[in-house]
Amino acid sequence: MTDTAAPTTDPIRLARDLLGCPSVTPEEGGALAYLDEVLSAAGFTVHRMVFSEPGTPDVENLYARIGSGAPHLTFAGHTDVVPVGDAAHWSHDPFAGTIVDGVLYGRGAVDMKGGIAAFLAAALRFLEKNDGFSGSISFLITGDEEGPAVNGTRKLLDWCTARGEAFDAAIVGEPTNPETLGDAIKIGRRGSLSATLTVTGTQGHAAYQHLADNPIPGIVRLIDALIAEPLDGGTEHFQPSNLEVTSIDVGNPAFNVIPAKATARFNIRFNDTWTTESLKAWLTETLDAAAGNSIRYDLAFEPAVSDVFRTEASDLIGTLSDAIAEVIGRRPELSTNGGTSDARFIKDVCPVVEFGLVGQTMHQVDERVPTADLDRLSAIYERFLDGFFAAANGNSR
Amino acid sequence: MTDTAAPTTDPIRLARDLLGCPSVTPEEGGALAYLDEVLSAAGFTVHRMVFSEPGTPDVENLYARIGSGAPHLTFAGHTDVVPVGDAAHWSHDPFAGTIVDGVLYGRGAVDMKGGIAAFLAAALRFLEKNDGFSGSISFLITGDEEGPAVNGTRKLLDWCTARGEAFDAAIVGEPTNPETLGDAIKIGRRGSLSATLTVTGTQGHAAYQHLADNPIPGIVRLIDALIAEPLDGGTEHFQPSNLEVTSIDVGNPAFNVIPAKATARFNIRFNDTWTTESLKAWLTETLDAAAGNSIRYDLAFEPAVSDVFRTEASDLIGTLSDAIAEVIGRRPELSTNGGTSDARFIKDVCPVVEFGLVGQTMHQVDERVPTADLDRLSAIYERFLDGFFAAANGNSR
Repeated sequence: MTDTAAPTTDPIRLARDLLGCPSVTPEEGGALAYLDEVLSAAGFTVHRMVFSEPGTPDVENLYARIGSGAPHLTFAGHTDVVPVGDAAHWSHDPFAGTIVDGVLYGRGAVDMKGGIAAFLAAALRFLEKNDGFSGSISFLITGDEEGPAVNGTRKLLDWCTARGEAFDAAIVGEPTNPETLGDAIKIGRRGSLSATLTVTGTQGHAAYQHLADNPIPGIVRLIDALIAEPLDGGTEHFQPSNLEVTSIDVGNPAFNVIPAKATARFNIRFNDTWTTESLKAWLTETLDAAAGNSIRYDLAFEPAVSDVFRTEASDLIGTLSDAIAEVIGRRPELSTNGGTSDARFIKDVCPVVEFGLVGQTMHQVDERVPTADLDRLSAIYERFLDGFFAAANGNSR
Repeated sequence: MTDTAAPTTDPIRLARDLLGCPSVTPEEGGALAYLDEVLSAAGFTVHRMVFSEPGTPDVENLYARIGSGAPHLTFAGHTDVVPVGDAAHWSHDPFAGTIVDGVLYGRGAVDMKGGIAAFLAAALRFLEKNDGFSGSISFLITGDEEGPAVNGTRKLLDWCTARGEAFDAAIVGEPTNPETLGDAIKIGRRGSLSATLTVTGTQGHAAYQHLADNPIPGIVRLIDALIAEPLDGGTEHFQPSNLEVTSIDVGNPAFNVIPAKATARFNIRFNDTWTTESLKAWLTETLDAAAGNSIRYDLAFEPAVSDVFRTEASDLIGTLSDAIAEVIGRRPELSTNGGTSDARFIKDVCPVVEFGLVGQTMHQVDERVPTADLDRLSAIYERFLDGFFAAANGNSR
């Protein structure tokens, strides 16, 4: 690398440039082109690929690597953002990267253009100071995390596998901190299983109910059975499992008609007490017992299942925890809380940890990040790279 | 009346002519024009009026009276019919009045063009043989019974009241017989009360359920409380009261989102154990007890309430029962079963009974009536008119 062509290593400048790209899923919005430019200038080999699937929009993705040796650390993230909602409710243009009183506003500020900017700046600084770096750093960046997630990280990993790209560890830059920077690393996630329950009856007139068979009392009884008791009390590393009924629908506009069908939709977040299989067996057993011979029901599982997982790579977790402790002055909680992320795909190819900004304003109006947090997160990432590559630093490439 | 101008007194011919009019609510379809022609020719004074109300279609109605003395019997009915559904599923054109093997097919055959034809034929025969008739017979015919019922019988009765038209008794020609002609007279009806129950929670992510407040377990608990016990065991003249939940709706397409609101709709058919007021009080008390301090709910009653009623005019009921016994050979059950009809409005102006055809095929594909039933019903109506006007017959007008 030469100093004259060196790109900025200021995470705030990088974040503002990324926030200026209107990359609402599935639009690339210039965000990947910007990363391509910066990473190419820094010596990365950049690949950009469009993934397609019938019924979903085409989505652009990016894979960039520098170095060919081991160990190989990959940073995973996404440049796509959720819609701004009503832009009139924002205090500042959501795509202008406005800074007021040390706070940077914009859609994606914390989820997760800010995280990408912080890691990018850290990586560039790390490479500048380690001229003989013999390991590999890569960026695995998708434009389809907030959308259907069909043409994103999963296909990006398939692409890498097909090319023989192997990873030793991954860090995902999603917001992981509930309150303040350094609160929590995520080292796993509960599994997620969704299903639709349908109860079938016989339509009829509300005044002649003996000629009909109303499915609503039946579905109410089945739901009662599903939510009667907690699934478990939680485990050493995980919150309790939880079943949420997210919809019940009949769609009958007439007060004088007994409907023929009722459906309920539910989602279960499950810990390592369960596997997808044991959970499905419990559901069938519980519903069969509640239905007896009188309720005709059908249970259809959604195809998108994510299994419970936990990263056991203590070196990786320790290195990240040390970096946070050095910059922030306290050790993070090792958490498995919250929703799924692309880590559910990455965990199949290498150990993965997640650490990013504070998530409080994500997906909200006036999404924002203190610029000091961007600097501190970038410093944490840099210390993490120092630690992760301690053995590989200073060697000749 | 002169023989040369006399209209037909054959109920089958009259029914076929009416079935030929495509009078699906709110279309007049020529049915009222046909009655106008026949009744005018028979000496009735015919009024046709269009009633309107914002948000509902304009609907045509008819009031026809012969005679100005007492007693005054009115026959109430409707010429509008429900849609045919998929006409391809019918064995015969639903508006052709086809007769096959002694059965007349067509939309409205039993509900209730057949009933109108039977009464019209009976009235014409009665008038022919009672040249000195001193009472009054009228037809109160709406085109808005199967629709919103806003521009129909209720407004027709208001119109009559405003003109000083007074009734001594009414007979409604709706199908009242479950199995065979003569099974049942309806002498009252359970009341009907409908309401929408809404439970409000707080939206959130299914993986962070502690930050949300799912309204679905709440609405399930409230519905459980409403359907836990029968409302009563029935009374001397009435079936048990019954509450049917006819819809539950959330409309949440996302498995990972906890919704903010759930609604349920229900209908209660209630007997003379209850009044509308006591029922509303029971609902509020039951829901409050089940909701405690943890479920936020709102209960909104539909404006269209019908009160429970029972006709106590034993002369009227006796005369009709005698007529049925003479023609059929057995006495009908005095029933209060089934759904509401326009009798709920008429009962406010005079005693009302209901008797018509067998209801089995009403609202169905291939709605049909044996032509023999049309003849027998017309004979029953004629005997009823003979009995009802026994004191008034033969007097000079």
